[in-house]
Amino acid sequence: MDLTELKAAVCEANLATVQTGLVMATFGNASGVDRETGLVAIKPSGVPYDRMTSDDMVAVRLDGSVVDNHYKPSSDLDTHLLLYRAFDGVGGVVHTHSTFATIFAQALTPIPCFGTTHADYFRGTVPVTRHLTEAEIADSYVASTGQAIIDAFAGRDPLEVPAALVAGHGPFVWGRTPAEAAMNAHILEECARMAWYSLQLRPDLGSLPVALRDRHFLRKHGQAATYGQETRA
Amino acid sequence: MDLTELKAAVCEANLATVQTGLVMATFGNASGVDRETGLVAIKPSGVPYDRMTSDDMVAVRLDGSVVDNHYKPSSDLDTHLLLYRAFDGVGGVVHTHSTFATIFAQALTPIPCFGTTHADYFRGTVPVTRHLTEAEIADSYVASTGQAIIDAFAGRDPLEVPAALVAGHGPFVWGRTPAEAAMNAHILEECARMAWYSLQLRPDLGSLPVALRDRHFLRKHGQAATYGQETRA
Amino acid sequence: MDLTELKAAVCEANLATVQTGLVMATFGNASGVDRETGLVAIKPSGVPYDRMTSDDMVAVRLDGSVVDNHYKPSSDLDTHLLLYRAFDGVGGVVHTHSTFATIFAQALTPIPCFGTTHADYFRGTVPVTRHLTEAEIADSYVASTGQAIIDAFAGRDPLEVPAALVAGHGPFVWGRTPAEAAMNAHILEECARMAWYSLQLRPDLGSLPVALRDRHFLRKHGQAATYGQETRA
Amino acid sequence: MDLTELKAAVCEANLATVQTGLVMATFGNASGVDRETGLVAIKPSGVPYDRMTSDDMVAVRLDGSVVDNHYKPSSDLDTHLLLYRAFDGVGGVVHTHSTFATIFAQALTPIPCFGTTHADYFRGTVPVTRHLTEAEIADSYVASTGQAIIDAFAGRDPLEVPAALVAGHGPFVWGRTPAEAAMNAHILEECARMAWYSLQLRPDLGSLPVALRDRHFLRKHGQAATYGQETRA
Repeated sequence: MDLTELKAAVCEANLATVQTGLVMATFGNASGVDRETGLVAIKPSGVPYDRMTSDDMVAVRLDGSVVDNHYKPSSDLDTHLLLYRAFDGVGGVVHTHSTFATIFAQALTPIPCFGTTHADYFRGTVPVTRHLTEAEIADSYVASTGQAIIDAFAGRDPLEVPAALVAGHGPFVWGRTPAEAAMNAHILEECARMAWYSLQLRPDLGSLPVALRDRHFLRKHGQAATYGQETRA
Repeated sequence: MDLTELKAAVCEANLATVQTGLVMATFGNASGVDRETGLVAIKPSGVPYDRMTSDDMVAVRLDGSVVDNHYKPSSDLDTHLLLYRAFDGVGGVVHTHSTFATIFAQALTPIPCFGTTHADYFRGTVPVTRHLTEAEIADSYVASTGQAIIDAFAGRDPLEVPAALVAGHGPFVWGRTPAEAAMNAHILEECARMAWYSLQLRPDLGSLPVALRDRHFLRKHGQAATYGQETRA
Repeated sequence: MDLTELKAAVCEANLATVQTGLVMATFGNASGVDRETGLVAIKPSGVPYDRMTSDDMVAVRLDGSVVDNHYKPSSDLDTHLLLYRAFDGVGGVVHTHSTFATIFAQALTPIPCFGTTHADYFRGTVPVTRHLTEAEIADSYVASTGQAIIDAFAGRDPLEVPAALVAGHGPFVWGRTPAEAAMNAHILEECARMAWYSLQLRPDLGSLPVALRDRHFLRKHGQAATYGQETRA
Repeated sequence: MDLTELKAAVCEANLATVQTGLVMATFGNASGVDRETGLVAIKPSGVPYDRMTSDDMVAVRLDGSVVDNHYKPSSDLDTHLLLYRAFDGVGGVVHTHSTFATIFAQALTPIPCFGTTHADYFRGTVPVTRHLTEAEIADSYVASTGQAIIDAFAGRDPLEVPAALVAGHGPFVWGRTPAEAAMNAHILEECARMAWYSLQLRPDLGSLPVALRDRHFLRKHGQAATYGQETRA
């Protein structure tokens, strides 16, 4: 994949978050990484979505050094970079303030797996990060946000639950590609919405039985996946 | 009805579930049966809706044997087949993860008949199935889902309440034709939505009086129906 | 106004209820009356909105006798006729199953005047009718529905609160013209929505102070109205 | 800026409130002021949005005297004028009955800063005004509404929290320009929506930590702002 293709995939993922209603104003950003070249492409800061093109995407290296600098990169760049460096299989990251995922993030409430819609994409509870310390906020706010996400996944496979809710802020979502990250962000929002309404209907609702959860997750993911028209590796 | 007509009707029912907002991503499937030939047409597995045509529908026999195999059928095929074999008058089945019907399914809460909107299409409470056992999930998940729906209708006429909520999963809805099944899925979602909000407004709300419920249901269904421009058999 | 103009106004009011999202499927009907000729035009029963034209509207007299009969009139005709005969100044009636107004009707809960949006169009609480008796349901369901609305307005001016919620069913709304009735139905739905959310936020919320309510209602209605570009009679 | 430019900016802000779903029917109005000439342009009263042009905007002076009078100005004019006279840096004011901001206004409940979406635009709680007295309602309703807003900002910088909820009525929102006021009205509605749902999920939810709130607000506002592609004064 050359840089032009990467920028095109990242631009498309950014536009997908708008088309699926996850983004209002300029709240949100998507990026992608090419693991062979170590190049990352990300949305520029504060540029309106309705006139955004692939050429506007900003390229940086995984260590944060700049490749081209027509625009400034998204102010959340350092969070994306920390996730790419810590999570090997991740090829795309999406951040939004989508309504229901943000509501759970604001309320410091993880999203349990209440149904098969959730289980088809997330193998268990979507976690909330710890609040940052005042020192972290003052000294390295954006990078510390990435670190808090990584801390929340200690001992877990980030591709089995490809999302985290940043406390008081909103969701970061990832996938093997920018397109998959955007799709996961869309599914997360719908799962958050249904979880919110389910909890109001039955406040003591427990998670889906593990056997049913894994039947759904493993039907779509991993070696034994059977869903769709092609066999997956 | 030849197979081409059946596939066209099934394709249209699948697209109707998208147009009425019941389906996001590829969550959902519709099928139809021709009772004379015993042929069933169903949505293929994991094919995007925006490029789906009648030709993509997969034909199988009521016993599950394959007629043509350009595509793999929906992974929920066996649920559809069990419903057709158990419910004589049913000509179409629709499965979605529509938001409010799925919320009730996740919360293991039946949808009571709270108003005439519900009574016009469903003569009483829409039931929730039992949770499957771990053995059922491991050995015959999709067929067991159909059996759990059939169990929930023991002693009831499935065409008087043409829907069930599968526990932790979502709604299966049916009708005399694929189009009627898609319409019933649309009405069910709106009734589920209104039931949710009604329960928050008045948690102790009881069902509609039976006389009023039946006045509405029988105005639109059965020998004495008077609604619309034609007399029904 | 000749019958052609009346049918055009009624058709437009029917279509307005669809455009403002108040109607799904064929749930709803609008009518209008010409007080000089005593003719009423109303939506036909069960005809899809997307191919409805002015010519399809059905004309009857205020006593219910048929003028033309290409189509059967709406099954709710008798409710409309009772309202026209009882409420002198009313020129149009609209019935919908709009989501939030129907939720209050299902929950048998009147809609209090919580804000100036409500007060601009409805001078006080929108009432819920009593439930009909089994004998009324069996013998004269549709006319009894109209009578229950009229009973709910004993001693009140129906043009000051131009709507009622029929218990377990949904709203009937009126105005001086079919267009005004459709507009009032739209406003009622938004007021019902905001009332529902206001009550969840503050369950003990009281009505708007009467002085503020009347300041708003009388700014838009009656002899001293000042809103808009023209003086009203 | 000449009057033609001012009217164009005000017309665009009015139309923006419709495009972002904040306004139904004719509920709402936007205005702008040119501080050099002391001229204010505002939406005319009760004119439908779908045929509104820049020429329809009504020009008045900051003291309320009329400049041109093809149309009557918005009935809320005096509220706008009081805000311009009291709040020096404000260049645009928008009033809507947007759903969730109005719900908080009806329920007399301020909107706390629960997340970074709120903090990016509003540095703290959005206040609710006191209810007006009966004398104020009778004698100077519209101007008193403005005064109640000004009272709610005693000792606070109105450009740090550019909105107030008028008790029982709805939001007034402002900014340095009409476009910024319309954008703030859009953000306020989304923050109100998320605050409502957050409170249902966690009724005892506290405000965002001040360090995090100010990190976000000051990233987008003031001398040290770093967001977007340009340095701000």
